[in-house]
Amino acid sequence: MTIYEFAEQIIYEAGQNIKNKLALELTIETKSNPNDLVTNMDKETEQLLVERINQAYPDHHIIGEEGHGKEVDTLDGVVWIIDPIDGTLNFVHQQQNFAISIGIFKDGEKYAGLVYDVMNDNLYHAIAGEGAYLNDMKLGALADTTLKRSIISLNPNWLTKDWIKDVYTPIVKDARSARSYGSAALDFVFVAAGIVDSYMTLRLHPWDFAGGMIIAEETGAVVSNQMGETLHPLQSNSIIVANQQLHREIVSGYLSRYEKELTELHQGMFSSR
Amino acid sequence: MTIYEFAEQIIYEAGQNIKNKLALELTIETKSNPNDLVTNMDKETEQLLVERINQAYPDHHIIGEEGHGKEVDTLDGVVWIIDPIDGTLNFVHQQQNFAISIGIFKDGEKYAGLVYDVMNDNLYHAIAGEGAYLNDMKLGALADTTLKRSIISLNPNWLTKDWIKDVYTPIVKDARSARSYGSAALDFVFVAAGIVDSYMTLRLHPWDFAGGMIIAEETGAVVSNQMGETLHPLQSNSIIVANQQLHREIVSGYLSRYEKELTELHQGMFSSR
Repeated sequence: MTIYEFAEQIIYEAGQNIKNKLALELTIETKSNPNDLVTNMDKETEQLLVERINQAYPDHHIIGEEGHGKEVDTLDGVVWIIDPIDGTLNFVHQQQNFAISIGIFKDGEKYAGLVYDVMNDNLYHAIAGEGAYLNDMKLGALADTTLKRSIISLNPNWLTKDWIKDVYTPIVKDARSARSYGSAALDFVFVAAGIVDSYMTLRLHPWDFAGGMIIAEETGAVVSNQMGETLHPLQSNSIIVANQQLHREIVSGYLSRYEKELTELHQGMFSSR
Repeated sequence: MTIYEFAEQIIYEAGQNIKNKLALELTIETKSNPNDLVTNMDKETEQLLVERINQAYPDHHIIGEEGHGKEVDTLDGVVWIIDPIDGTLNFVHQQQNFAISIGIFKDGEKYAGLVYDVMNDNLYHAIAGEGAYLNDMKLGALADTTLKRSIISLNPNWLTKDWIKDVYTPIVKDARSARSYGSAALDFVFVAAGIVDSYMTLRLHPWDFAGGMIIAEETGAVVSNQMGETLHPLQSNSIIVANQQLHREIVSGYLSRYEKELTELHQGMFSSR
C-alpha cells in the first residue's frame, strides 16, 4: 500500500467514525452543548488519524489543528498536515458541509492532498503531478474566466470590517455573484471542481489549506497569498485561489492597489503559525 | 390522487427531465453558451409543469417565472405559483444547488409548498397545517436562537451597495457567521431544516418565495418583508425568514432603525409584480 492509499483508507475510517457518532448523538437526543460535541469530535478524529499514521509510519511527522506537531518546523522527511474537522461552525449548526483535510509533503515537496466532504461522501484527492479527482471522476483543467463572469467565494463578514472592507468591496461588486460556504478546505476543492471560480480569505493556518492547495493546483488553479506570493506550507497566511486568468485579474487589478495595507496587515497577523 | 400528490409527481418528473438534459449536454460536450441552456431549460421546465397542470386541472390558474399567468391577479380558485429553476446562476455555473419551486393556494389560503433540490434529490414539501418534510423525514419545530448564536444567509453583494449596506452591516457583524448559497427557494428550506437560522434578501418575486414560505412556516419560521409586514403571495417584496425569536430580534433591533429608508425603498421597488 502506498502512503496515498493509506491516507485514503484512514480518511474514510475517520469520516465513518464521525458519521457513527453523529447518528448516535441524534439517536440519544443528547441535550449537551453542541460546542462540546465539536471539541470532542475534533480531538477524537485527530487522535484517530495520528494513531493510525504513527502505527504505520513511526518516522513520519504530523501537524494537526488540535495541537499535534507544534514542534515540527521543517518539511524534512514525510510531513502530514491535518485538519480533523474543517468548517467547525457548519459541523455544529448543520452537521454537514464540513471536511477532513490532509496534506502530505515529502522532503519539502508536495506529495498528496485529500479533502473529504464527510456527509456527502465526496472525497476530493490528488497526487501532485497526477491530476485531481472527485471520488473516481478526474477533474478537468480549469478554464480561464474574467471576474465579471465569475462566482467568487468570500465570507460576507469581511465586508463589515472597517480595516479590510475597502479591499474586497470592489471585487465583490465586479464579480458576477458571490457565495459563502463556511469551510476553507471545501472552498479550495470547490474551485478545483468549478463550483466557484475563486476563493479568498484573510487568514488560514497550514491545516486549513495544505490538502486543498495540492488538489486545486492539480486542476491548474493558482494558489497564493493576497499579495500574489507563494504560500509556505508551515506558515499561516492570507489566501486567494482561482483559475490562472482570474487570479491575475484579482491580484493585479484589485489587491495590488492595497499592497502597502496588506503588507502591514500580514506583518501584524502572521508573526507565528 | 390529491393535488398535493399530483404536485409531487410532476415536480419529480420535471426534475428528472432536467437531469436527463444536463447529462446529455455533458455527454455531447456542447460548446453552446450556458446561458442558452438555462433559458431553454427554464422555459421547457415551466412548459412541462404548465401542460401537466392544465391537463389534469383545466380550471386551475398558474403563475410562472417564465411568463405564464401574467393576467392572474387574485387568489380565487386554485393558484399554482411556479419557479422552474430557482438559482439560475448556480444552474449555469455549478449544474447543482438549484431548485424547482411550487407554491399552491386554494381560495386565498396557503395549501402546499414544494421545493425540489434536483441534483441532491432532496424534496422539501409541506401541506399547510400538517408539518414540513424533507423527503420522508418530518422536520422538527425550529428552536429559538439569538443573532450572536445564529448563522444567517445573505448575499455578500448587498454589503457592497451604498444605498443598503448600512442596514445589513450591523446584522452580519453581530451574527455568529454568514453564508450565501445563491437560491432563494433553497434558502427558505435551509431555514426550515435548521441549516441556517435566517435568510434575508431585498427583492423576491412570488415564484421565488411561494413554495419556500409555506414550507418554512410549517416549521414555525416567521416570514415577512423587512419591515415585519406580512407578504402578499402575488406581490414582489423584500424578505426576512427566521425562527420566531431571531425574526423579532432582527426586525425590532436592527431593521426598524431604517424603517423610513426601507419604506421609501419598497415604494420605489415594488410598484408592480
